[in-house]
Amino acid sequence: MRFTSEQRLDDGVLERAFTLGDVPGILWTPASASEPAPLILLGHPGGLRKMHPRLAARARHSATEHGYASAAIELPGGGDRPRLETAEQARADLRRALEAGEPVSDDIVDRLVLPLVEKGVPEWQATLDALLSLPEIGGPVGFSGGVIAIGVRLAVVEPRISAAVLFAGSYVPRVTFEDARQVTIPLHVMLQWDDEGNDRQAALDLFDAFGSKEKTLHANMGGHTGVPQFEGEAAARFFTRHLS
Amino acid sequence: MRFTSEQRLDDGVLERAFTLGDVPGILWTPASASEPAPLILLGHPGGLRKMHPRLAARARHSATEHGYASAAIELPGGGDRPRLETAEQARADLRRALEAGEPVSDDIVDRLVLPLVEKGVPEWQATLDALLSLPEIGGPVGFSGGVIAIGVRLAVVEPRISAAVLFAGSYVPRVTFEDARQVTIPLHVMLQWDDEGNDRQAALDLFDAFGSKEKTLHANMGGHTGVPQFEGEAAARFFTRHLS
Repeated sequence: MRFTSEQRLDDGVLERAFTLGDVPGILWTPASASEPAPLILLGHPGGLRKMHPRLAARARHSATEHGYASAAIELPGGGDRPRLETAEQARADLRRALEAGEPVSDDIVDRLVLPLVEKGVPEWQATLDALLSLPEIGGPVGFSGGVIAIGVRLAVVEPRISAAVLFAGSYVPRVTFEDARQVTIPLHVMLQWDDEGNDRQAALDLFDAFGSKEKTLHANMGGHTGVPQFEGEAAARFFTRHLS
Repeated sequence: MRFTSEQRLDDGVLERAFTLGDVPGILWTPASASEPAPLILLGHPGGLRKMHPRLAARARHSATEHGYASAAIELPGGGDRPRLETAEQARADLRRALEAGEPVSDDIVDRLVLPLVEKGVPEWQATLDALLSLPEIGGPVGFSGGVIAIGVRLAVVEPRISAAVLFAGSYVPRVTFEDARQVTIPLHVMLQWDDEGNDRQAALDLFDAFGSKEKTLHANMGGHTGVPQFEGEAAARFFTRHLS
């Protein structure tokens, strides 16, 4: 892990850009920590530069209010990273299906999302290795948001993740339902009830499939980007219960 | 409204038993209020005496933490009130159906629940008239819990109710789905995902039917009585947003 820039923000939070191999990322750490901080891995839909303002706002809130560190990495194929050919082809097929008003087939979803899972999950794990070796970061570790199939797979394969906030707002490959049954960590799942690009029943089926004893679903009105502000606070309280 | 007993509890909350006609009830008001308090109407499944400890705990928390008054009245046919013959007959039919492993018919649900709605809703409205005439109570008014068909009907017909917390844990008559479309106040709906005595799909359909622009569903694991403690706090925050 190589830090490439460093900036002390006006609330005292330290924001550092890094690269790990060819994966760029950002780390936010609290102004002052008497002991190693818990860590939240911030998922996102890809395009770290575009997502930066929203991710930074969440990270700074977590740092100043709760003393948590946060980190985000670029998604495979996202931002300036090399395109993933299979996923690009699937994205074109998806666009054609949506424009034609046709249902989005399982095959398109698999080709669109599985490359992200297969490449992205080990990248998150390598990032976790590097972050947890820093003296200012101690865990426990939570995962929040982003591509739900990545969050679910991480929850299965990565024992260092203690709790996850998942956003049922992206396509769900079939294998993710199988992954879901193996998840045992506490989950907080958000669903936008009228999300145009999201299959509500698939989201409810996925929630049902999770093996976790503690899982909570929060459904709200409105579309993909209409998550009410109070849900940010609810997710923060979930992490407070499980990371503090 | 006639107060029949009065007790100052050790947290300063004033608990008063009352009768309104032949309906017994309980009112809890904060220790000291500089201005008329908001009011929460506490629904329950019937049997005020048995429910008293749980209702009192919620009311005292609302009073000491938020400065709210709370009130509960006995359900028609509940506690020492005269039985409702139709509902009693339906309850026997329900028991037979459950013991025989048969589905609970819409007809049984209608006969079980509609008498409670038809008698209970005007009783809540008369109680509201009486409570809002007290100088220490000012509103706004929230409704919380109890028989969901009563809460939904009240939300439709009673403009003095500003927000409602509903528990999707009781049988839903068909007419309640029609009522639901007319509801426009903010709703916070709780659902126990594995509630044995509750039809999950009916609960999701009812949530979908509500006409409110702000409605949130919180689903958690476990059975009817397994609502996690943090959901009590989430409901309190919902009221804080809408009654304060």
